[in-house]
Parts: sequence; structure tokens; C-alpha cells
Amino acid sequence: MRPTVTRLDRASLHGSLHDPVLGSIGFLNEVMQRHPGTISFAPGAPHPDLLPDTGLQRYVDRFVDHLVDDRGLTPERARRLLREYGPSRGLINELVAEALARDYGIAAGPGAVVITVGAQEAMLLVLRTLFGSPDDLLAVANPCFVGITGAARLLDIDVVGVRETADGIDPDCLAGLCAAARGAGRRVRACYVAPDFSNPGGGRMSLACRQELLRLAEREDFLVLEDNAYGFTAPSGCELPMLKSLDSTGRVVHIGTFAKIAFPGARVGYVVADQTVTGPCGGTRLLADELAVVKGMVTVNTSPLSQAVVAGMLLDHGGSLIALSRDKSRLYRRNLECLIAALDRHLTGAAPGVRWNRPDGGFFVRLRLPVPVTTGLLERCATEYGVLWTPMAPFYTDASGDHELRLSCSYLSPDQIETGVRRLARFLRTEVRP
Amino acid sequence: MRPTVTRLDRASLHGSLHDPVLGSIGFLNEVMQRHPGTISFAPGAPHPDLLPDTGLQRYVDRFVDHLVDDRGLTPERARRLLREYGPSRGLINELVAEALARDYGIAAGPGAVVITVGAQEAMLLVLRTLFGSPDDLLAVANPCFVGITGAARLLDIDVVGVRETADGIDPDCLAGLCAAARGAGRRVRACYVAPDFSNPGGGRMSLACRQELLRLAEREDFLVLEDNAYGFTAPSGCELPMLKSLDSTGRVVHIGTFAKIAFPGARVGYVVADQTVTGPCGGTRLLADELAVVKGMVTVNTSPLSQAVVAGMLLDHGGSLIALSRDKSRLYRRNLECLIAALDRHLTGAAPGVRWNRPDGGFFVRLRLPVPVTTGLLERCATEYGVLWTPMAPFYTDASGDHELRLSCSYLSPDQIETGVRRLARFLRTEVRP
Repeated sequence: MRPTVTRLDRASLHGSLHDPVLGSIGFLNEVMQRHPGTISFAPGAPHPDLLPDTGLQRYVDRFVDHLVDDRGLTPERARRLLREYGPSRGLINELVAEALARDYGIAAGPGAVVITVGAQEAMLLVLRTLFGSPDDLLAVANPCFVGITGAARLLDIDVVGVRETADGIDPDCLAGLCAAARGAGRRVRACYVAPDFSNPGGGRMSLACRQELLRLAEREDFLVLEDNAYGFTAPSGCELPMLKSLDSTGRVVHIGTFAKIAFPGARVGYVVADQTVTGPCGGTRLLADELAVVKGMVTVNTSPLSQAVVAGMLLDHGGSLIALSRDKSRLYRRNLECLIAALDRHLTGAAPGVRWNRPDGGFFVRLRLPVPVTTGLLERCATEYGVLWTPMAPFYTDASGDHELRLSCSYLSPDQIETGVRRLARFLRTEVRP
Repeated sequence: MRPTVTRLDRASLHGSLHDPVLGSIGFLNEVMQRHPGTISFAPGAPHPDLLPDTGLQRYVDRFVDHLVDDRGLTPERARRLLREYGPSRGLINELVAEALARDYGIAAGPGAVVITVGAQEAMLLVLRTLFGSPDDLLAVANPCFVGITGAARLLDIDVVGVRETADGIDPDCLAGLCAAARGAGRRVRACYVAPDFSNPGGGRMSLACRQELLRLAEREDFLVLEDNAYGFTAPSGCELPMLKSLDSTGRVVHIGTFAKIAFPGARVGYVVADQTVTGPCGGTRLLADELAVVKGMVTVNTSPLSQAVVAGMLLDHGGSLIALSRDKSRLYRRNLECLIAALDRHLTGAAPGVRWNRPDGGFFVRLRLPVPVTTGLLERCATEYGVLWTPMAPFYTDASGDHELRLSCSYLSPDQIETGVRRLARFLRTEVRP
């Protein structure tokens, strides 16, 4: 019907759209759609068994009752709150602040909390707010979640990768990057870490490393962006304190999400930012206030409806994030144990030169192959062997990950994991020779 | 408890946070909270009578039935869709595309639609995607909605204002800006307009002006960003075609929202972007595909729950945006007539040098005072006269609006409008002298 359609040259679009990081996610989705029968170790999505089955209205009603009974609103006002626009900073900030204080010893208070459209928006807001100069650098653990490097790319923020050791990021490497930046007239403004079972690394930062990172942040004057999406999967009794709870000087901006402990479809996350911002006339606000202003220009506010559903689920668990996440934590640990046991059983000896890590929590295991992990290899594995995974290269800030792939076990059943690993073993035996 | 808290200098934060546009919204909210008894003509928020009262579950169920009955999904799969992450581009794209085609003759198809967290996110995505060079300029009608200028500020995109006439933006002024940009080695990449009853201008672009804008876009090679938040308030029979429906060459990116015709708490909007993007190897995608990639780094996806509720409401109205908006359109027109009639009754003669416009639709009337509209004047009006409004200055790209204020009638009852205008008349008679 249309005579012509305007053509745009991709080269004229923003640079982030030429970035392989942003492209890689689309590619994976596309491969999955082309091969619907495969077992996919690719998506880091929550397990469908754990999604709330019915009763959205019940959760909403639970939150409305809470507003009436505990916060003194009239029922009419409480119901109306869910349907109107609302404050950019959110409606459920008190509940989140109380849970973080009770569960994790994070005593920042509701004024320091901003409710976001998932952790992703929180990352974007924090980066946009903090990075005021093109000379500001973002340091990230290498490998690193593509959500943060992608958000940095959207905002034209330069990223530097920090080497990881078995204990977490290498503080000497980070100190060296700070010195090098200074020498070049730049500075490391913030360092992003996921201290517990990071996506995709799977590693965990030791207590000593956490403390050293905070000391370094103080000495080198940068902020730490802590992303805690997977901390809830720690084996009971083996939890390590969150960076924010160790943060006596206010160096840490803490990012959390309900996607994994409630359900992803709500799209609710949060950020805790209790740093003081001093204005030109000496007035002070919290960093959270600045984040809320920026949020006004990104999404205005997080859906009050979604906030209500998540709050209702939290209230159903006594207002505790830990209680809300308990069943999920158990299931994910079971899946992870199944995956590691299956790898041990089927891959040991069968595929020379193939190695894997053994994280204590999280959704992910890393596999190192003796050959480069190409998209061609991924295609062949999906088509001929019926199993999918994620190449690790896009997670790296350099080329060091091109022999690695990531396996996610969050979305599968133990049977699927067993079958998938068997297929993977056949693929490796047949196609991968050192 | 905390020994020290990290202090950040606001000057070190991103430049958008020093911008009066972003600050002005916070200031207004603050004044409103300090004076809860006032009648406020400030918020452009939907009328509370029109918000759905109960039955969130019913709307969700309606959408699930639709997925099962009309799209062939199993009930289990349909329910699961609402709780999982989903595609960045959205879940209800077909319904939106069908409605736009049927209601407004916009024949772009579902592949060109991306569902967003309100129109605000749509603006951010479009700007981030299209603006690839610091030499790209965004032209906006002057005065202009702060959501678009704020989003541009977040992304460090330079904005130029286009003069408005009674018929809409002045094409000669825009052509001049294009030529001046070219002369300076830059270019106007896109022009943002709200052709129907814009916020805050209230004006409406004539059919001839719409056609001229499209010709100019073709000649000068820019895109038109059409924001259609208020078109539904046009008197029946007086609708003008949307720019996108006149767009034979694909120059228009169309942005819409459910905030005003369904309810704001859902936070659901959409963007139609059917432009072809050609890659370096000659492959083509739609601009919507690129927007979806960028969305993955902003909010990942729009809450499927919110999408389901909005879709259920749309299905309840035969899948028609016009049918969904009919009651709202009627109520807003009644309010606008009340406001203009009250201004005519109480202000004519009473306040020399005060003038106002008489839009045929939308939420807003502009008032021009013979004195500068300062925040001091706003404070006095709120404190002493019990009535609030919005200064127009932040909506302007230059200083030309400093004698203007905006009155919004969307949120009030006819009685409140009458009382509010009486108070305003007393304020103007007493405090404002030319």
C-alpha cells in the first residue's frame, strides 16, 4: 500500500545499536525461536513453577488493607493510589526499606529507596545520575552482566574491566585502573559488582574482598554499585553480608529486584542510595532524590499496580524478602546441584580440555572449551544436538572469554537438565576437539 | 548510627540535574503537598471518576481468554505469559496495531509497534535510537511538553524551539532552523509535535499545517515524532487525521499512551516505528526492532500484567481505542467548557491585561498575565488564595513564556473549577496589576 518507506542508515543511529552486546541478546532469542524443541540452558529466567498462579487481586487487596490498617489511609484513597500516576520514587518504599533493614541489616530508611521498573531501570538511573563528565569511567567485574554494560553504552559511558579471582574482583587490578585513569586525567566514578553468584561469572566475593573493596572505594573516591539479584540463593547458614550492610561510610549504592524472588512479570526493582548530595547553595538532598528526578524522564513512575502485587506478596511473607525467597532458593539450589552432578557424570573424561566451575549458588555454570565458542558452534549444537547455551564473549570487556559458554539451570526441571547435559556431552565428544 | 555519609557535589552529577525543567516538576509537587486544601489547576492527571474501580482480575482474565480463543494459546501458556519476562517489544502489539488501523487508519502492522512504560519511555527510546551524533538537533514546538525536552536533556541532545502560530508550528521557522543547522555543520534529525491540543500550548495543528510539516520532513530529511496523548478529546465530528495516517512516506514515528484513555497506574504506552533501517551488509529491519533492543537496556520489557489489564479494557470495548476513550472524552470536554466559561464570567474586565486561549479539546488553558509569573507569585496564590497552577516558563525553550501560566481542568469537578476560577479572579484583581 505504501509507495515508499523512509530508509535510515543504521550507521546514523546511536552507537549502542552497533554494539555486539546489545545484538547478542536478540540473536539468542532468535535462535531459541528457530529451535523450539531444544533444551535451552540459555535463559536466566525464573522457574515457571514458582510464579504465582492466581489471585493477583488478592495481592492487590492485601496491600490496600495494609495501607488502610497500618498506614492510616482511607480505603478509597488507598484504592485510588493504585490507579493514578504516583510519586516517581514509588509507593512501597517503606516496606522495602523495612525488609532490607530486618533481613539484611541495611539501615538506609525509606527516603533512600527508589522503586524502579526492575533492576535494569535502577542501573540506568544510577549511571545517568552519577556520570556527569565524559572523563568518568565505570569499572565492572570482568565478565559482567550485559544489563550494566549495555546501559553504560546507551549513555556513552566508557567501561573498564576488572580481573576476577576466586575471591571476587582483584583489588590490585582495580587500584591500578584508578591510578591509570587519574594519570590520563580521568577517574573511576563507580565500580559495578554482583558479589553473590554473579551473572555470568557465578563467583562469590569473600568477606575480606568485600571489605577491601569498600576501603579502596573510600581511598580512591569511587562509589560501589552492588547488584544483589542472586544473593538469596546462598545455602542457608552460608550467607555473606551484603556490601551495603558493611558500608559504614555510604560508598555503596544497592540495587535489588523482585523478578527472581516474586515474579518477573511485575517488573519491580529498587535502588538504595543514601549518599548526601550538596547543592551549589549548600542545601543537601539524598542521591535517591536525584534518581527520582531522572526517573521522571525515563518512565515517570513504576506501575502502582505492579508495586501493589509485589507488596502484597511481601506482606504475605511477614514483610520479609528472605521468607518470600525461601522456596525459590531451595529450588534453584536443587537445580544447580543437578547441573553440576550431571556435568561431573557425563563430561568427565568424555571431552578432553573441557572445564567447568562449581558455584555454591546462583543460576549459572561456566564451561571452558578447548576451542573458540562461535555462533556457528551454537547453531550446530542447537540444530544437530537439540541443546542451547549462551556464548560468554559478550559478557567480557575484552577478548578473554571467547572459549567460554554459560549454562543456566534456573528455568529447567531436573529431568531436562539431565537430558540436556547428555546432549551437550554428545555434542562435545563429537564436535569439539582440542 | 552512621559515622559519616559520602557526600557528592551536585556539580559532579549529570548536567540534566542542574536543569530547571527537571527541577520544576519536583517544585510543583512540593507546593501541592504544602497546601493540601487548595484547588489545584496544576496536575494534568486523569480524572479519578474515570479510573476503573474494581476487577483487575477480570481484565486480566479477559486478555487471557483472548489469547486462548483468538490467538490459539493454551490456557496454561497464556497465564504463564503474564508472569514471565516477555519480549521487549511487548505482548499486546497485535491489539494495538489493529486498533490503530481500525480507529485511525494507521496501517503500520504489529511488527512496527513497541509497547512501552508509558509515552515517556517511548520518547526516551526514540531519542536514544535516532540521535547518533552530537550534531543531531531535536526541534520542538515552543512551548513544549517537558517530558520530551527532559528526555533530550538526559541524553545530552540539543533542542531548538519552533515558533507556534494559531495553525500549529510555523513551517517557515522550522525550515529556517534546518537551514541554519546545515550551515553550522549540524542537522535537525527529528521534530517533536503534539498536533492535537498539546500540553501545555493547547493548540491544534490545521490539516494544511500537518501536510506542510510532512512535505518539509521529506524535503529536509528529518523524522516527525507525533505524540497523540490528547487527540481523543476532540469534539465528535471535528477530528483531524493523525500525522501518522497522512504519512505516505514513513516520516512519522507515532507515540501513544493508555494513561489518559485507560488509567495511568498501568503505565502502558506504545510507539509505532515502521521506518526501514538498513544495516552495513544491506540487511534491513524496522526502526521498531532497534527501539526494542534499546528498551532491553532501559526496562527490559513493559510489565505483562499491566499490558494484560489494558488489553482487557480494550477488548471490553471491542478492541477500539475510540470506544475506550468515549466517556473520558465527554467528561474532559465538559470540564474544559466549564473552565473557559468560568474564566469568561469571572475574569473578563476584572483583571486588565489578562488573556486566555480557548482550545477545543485537551486538558489545558493558557493564561497570559501583564506581569512576570514567578514562583513567589505561585506561592502567594496558593497560600493566600487557595488556588494552584503551573508556571509556563519551564515549557519554553526560550524566555518568551515568563508571563504565562497553565490551568489544567482534567482532575477537577465543575464545582471545583467554578470555585477555583473565583479564587483566581480574586487573586488577579488583588495582586496582579499591569
